[in-house]
Amino acid sequence: MTDRRLAGPVRIVGTGLLGTSIGLALVARGVDVSLADISPSGLALAIDYGAGRAAGAGDAPQLIVVCVPPDVTARIVADELAAFPHALVTDVASVKEAPLRELVALGADVSRYIGSHPMAGRERNGAVAARADLFMGRPWVLAGHDRISYAGALAVEQLALDLGALPIEMTVEDHDRNVALVSHAPQVISSLLAARLTDATDAATALAGQGLRDTTRIAASDPELWVQILGANAPAIAGILHSYRDDLDRAIVALDAPRATGARRAIAELIAGGNAGVARLPGKHGQAKHFSRIVVLVDDKPGELARLLTEIGELGVNMEDLRLEHSPGAQIGLAEISVLPSVESRLVSELESRGWKISEALA
Amino acid sequence: MTDRRLAGPVRIVGTGLLGTSIGLALVARGVDVSLADISPSGLALAIDYGAGRAAGAGDAPQLIVVCVPPDVTARIVADELAAFPHALVTDVASVKEAPLRELVALGADVSRYIGSHPMAGRERNGAVAARADLFMGRPWVLAGHDRISYAGALAVEQLALDLGALPIEMTVEDHDRNVALVSHAPQVISSLLAARLTDATDAATALAGQGLRDTTRIAASDPELWVQILGANAPAIAGILHSYRDDLDRAIVALDAPRATGARRAIAELIAGGNAGVARLPGKHGQAKHFSRIVVLVDDKPGELARLLTEIGELGVNMEDLRLEHSPGAQIGLAEISVLPSVESRLVSELESRGWKISEALA
Repeated sequence: MTDRRLAGPVRIVGTGLLGTSIGLALVARGVDVSLADISPSGLALAIDYGAGRAAGAGDAPQLIVVCVPPDVTARIVADELAAFPHALVTDVASVKEAPLRELVALGADVSRYIGSHPMAGRERNGAVAARADLFMGRPWVLAGHDRISYAGALAVEQLALDLGALPIEMTVEDHDRNVALVSHAPQVISSLLAARLTDATDAATALAGQGLRDTTRIAASDPELWVQILGANAPAIAGILHSYRDDLDRAIVALDAPRATGARRAIAELIAGGNAGVARLPGKHGQAKHFSRIVVLVDDKPGELARLLTEIGELGVNMEDLRLEHSPGAQIGLAEISVLPSVESRLVSELESRGWKISEALA
Repeated sequence: MTDRRLAGPVRIVGTGLLGTSIGLALVARGVDVSLADISPSGLALAIDYGAGRAAGAGDAPQLIVVCVPPDVTARIVADELAAFPHALVTDVASVKEAPLRELVALGADVSRYIGSHPMAGRERNGAVAARADLFMGRPWVLAGHDRISYAGALAVEQLALDLGALPIEMTVEDHDRNVALVSHAPQVISSLLAARLTDATDAATALAGQGLRDTTRIAASDPELWVQILGANAPAIAGILHSYRDDLDRAIVALDAPRATGARRAIAELIAGGNAGVARLPGKHGQAKHFSRIVVLVDDKPGELARLLTEIGELGVNMEDLRLEHSPGAQIGLAEISVLPSVESRLVSELESRGWKISEALA
């Protein structure tokens, strides 16, 4: 496939999940990709997967993508800027201000550097988990600063677009503040909540519903990576956690004396504040919408859910979202389907007439 | 249908979501159900839906189910115990110790009372949202105390079983401690996190991924109900939040001085503690299992997901879980499918050979 914006050649430093995925996607588009990694076996593996060729002495990359852990990102970027004085250099670390500051301190030529941050999943790591489609449909932040022009950074935007990602421009400061709010502080808050379950009895965890599962899912994240991310963006995260603790203190005061004057109001405002905050999150396709949710009981055997979705498709109803829950101890699944409110009652009656059992929305 | 354990008659006081749902399920099983509600129109609506008949002067219920808000539960239970001296009385409030203590203080005959708590969803309220299947496959706590015998409480266990729920016995103290841990404290923690988003910029919320969405989903809960629940179980919730705040303080100390001795270790232990806690949650069918997750890109049009699930069924693979995510701004959906690790590689290669695009697990 040669349908691409980026001319190349591209050099990728670090052949973990992100570096290898970027290489796979670029090679598929006909870009000349050279790979480098501190680990010879890691490099060989990425080459085996087809993510590019080994870097050579005569390489003259247009663009260098540094895909190494946050801790060492700035140092490697500085090395690359020095070694390839005509190349634009970017990185993919989850924090952007600390590496830029470190680069400036190192005296690097940051007029040829712009950081980026593809918001792509990585519950698994390494070249073995790499996918050319990893960035498809995902936001890809270009973290601008005042030492590089828009035109100078164009190749990074072309890279994001060639990979199917959605480029979003913001300053390094805005990036770090934003991800602290929507990613890093939530990680701390979720991990601390999950840690409360460590000594829970089986009787307690048997009562756990979908709410707790959702609230603690990201607590399964990799400690090594998160030590680096949280350390590198500590001031922004700490700022949010200080505010969070102030709110928590108010909640604790109210719950320590629930009959005191003002306690009920404080609790009500706590829940209402959460209502207002969650309503700020964009829904499908970036729009904040309210959907009706219905829950259909599905026998826990292969093919049943497909049959349900086929029938929903036959009714001409577009699902806006779908979640599955298995009842603990029961051979039954609950499929929660979000649809536009205007089609809810028709969908419920059609499904019931076809023999499906409809239950209440998951709590 | 007369396949039932409970003989009846049953009297239901309060015809909201839970009371009406219980009535619908019992009527479907041929039980004589009489209904009472403080609101004549609410009562008439539940009767219209077929949840039972209006209560009459000659009623002699075997079992009375009080389905009123937590705040007034004890008072109504006491009234019912006095008015029907031969009936067993239960309630369905989300807290169990405070109502029992209040009943004892009121001098009620608690040898005929056992509280219960069906762990069923209720994102919508009222008789209009009621479903006979509401309790299917859900835990239903029977909160025992030392003034009622197991045999005396049998009818409540029969009620839970007739409704398809899974009875779990525990003391009122254990119940309240357990739901504080797995439901009430997580509600506070999630609501406070969501509240941090109230003043977020659009640029920040545009970066929100599935992790934040999951972590804040329950923050959309009803303030009025939660004021009552949190107020009634305040000591148990406050105890957990105090411990949570101690952990949060340690995290803040580490993030306020991320280069200090011990800071990295404190952050690593925070994340590792979350790993350990989330691993305590039972998986599908009550077992704690680890599944492999693959993400398949699905065009955002009716029928595509059904086609995918049909093909997975044809491959003989049983999905353990499924989640859908829509990429903001993109006409594409990501279906995250959990399967046993032993079938993962076969499923990936079979789906890829059928033309599906596989991406990385959602972060």
